Amino acid sequence: MTLRIYGDSISGNCLKVKWTADRLGRAYEWIETSVLKAETRTPAFLAMNPAGQVPLVLLDDGRPLAQSNAIILHLAEGSDLIPADAYERARMLEWMFWEQYSHEPYVAVARFHHHYLGKPLGELDPKLFERGNGALQRLEDALEAEQFLVGGRLSLADVALVAYTRVAHEGGFDLSRYPKVQAWVARVEAALGIA
Amino acid sequence: MTLRIYGDSISGNCLKVKWTADRLGRAYEWIETSVLKAETRTPAFLAMNPAGQVPLVLLDDGRPLAQSNAIILHLAEGSDLIPADAYERARMLEWMFWEQYSHEPYVAVARFHHHYLGKPLGELDPKLFERGNGALQRLEDALEAEQFLVGGRLSLADVALVAYTRVAHEGGFDLSRYPKVQAWVARVEAALGIA
Repeated sequence: MTLRIYGDSISGNCLKVKWTADRLGRAYEWIETSVLKAETRTPAFLAMNPAGQVPLVLLDDGRPLAQSNAIILHLAEGSDLIPADAYERARMLEWMFWEQYSHEPYVAVARFHHHYLGKPLGELDPKLFERGNGALQRLEDALEAEQFLVGGRLSLADVALVAYTRVAHEGGFDLSRYPKVQAWVARVEAALGIA
Repeated sequence: MTLRIYGDSISGNCLKVKWTADRLGRAYEWIETSVLKAETRTPAFLAMNPAGQVPLVLLDDGRPLAQSNAIILHLAEGSDLIPADAYERARMLEWMFWEQYSHEPYVAVARFHHHYLGKPLGELDPKLFERGNGALQRLEDALEAEQFLVGGRLSLADVALVAYTRVAHEGGFDLSRYPKVQAWVARVEAALGIA
């Protein structure tokens, strides 16, 4: 059976999985699953992922796996998207956990509420912008003298962080304040063929 | 040089690292670093971890590594705390990312504001309890017929999830509503020697 990806095309978390599968030349079936239409909350979906979240994949043998970063780590095992060096691998994981804890909850959440739910930027919690800009500044600093986040080459850290950074403007963030980040987004998009 | 752990003893995220090092018989120096006293925001600390967060470790060669789950994954590489089977390993990672995204931001944050900052429970955002209880219920369901979260034995998924679950009552959560979780907490504490 082919890999099945349940994903919402407007979700950076879901696109991470698509980009990784594409980069690895992995065949898959994409099953569009809308968060806004609550298709992640149906009994059939909850039976596959009790967390009620996309992305979710069913592996070739039908077994389910959720959490975007866990999925791409699994798909990319043994590939050049994961550094062979143990310390670089650990730093990649550090970025990936930081992404879900300190970047996505601000940058992606502001975008979702503004761009998709239509809430005016001025009505969003100012903390989203304070912390979101803090996350973008941290990326800017990390990319000051680096082409990619870890080990001088594309890794899953870049895949994970680029997902919502590249659409941060849809959440009211001004990426022109972060020129190193802008250049890195273009570099990662080119490497992934999604420019 | 010995492994150095910069951690705050009141932080479950930091204790994960201590427990893992202890379980692995790994020697380390613990450097108490208080979040409440802003010791994670000094220039010296920020030079080691620009994210300004504990835990942070300096490895034997002095190189830094942050993010609790990335640290324990690195320390435990090749040990029995990480399943040998690729799918079980992926499920462990799924739980670890879910912990940081869907459990810690509610259960740990409620505890921090109530137990450490002294805010009355009634003044906390109700969303903390709604989502925190949702996370605890998901654990309860997952542990319905299982002794541990992945593969029938202790793994880093248990280490990561037990950290704030065991002190959830300090954040106003009633663990007696989740008997399977209570039994699992006792089991994991016993396995880690922290009961």
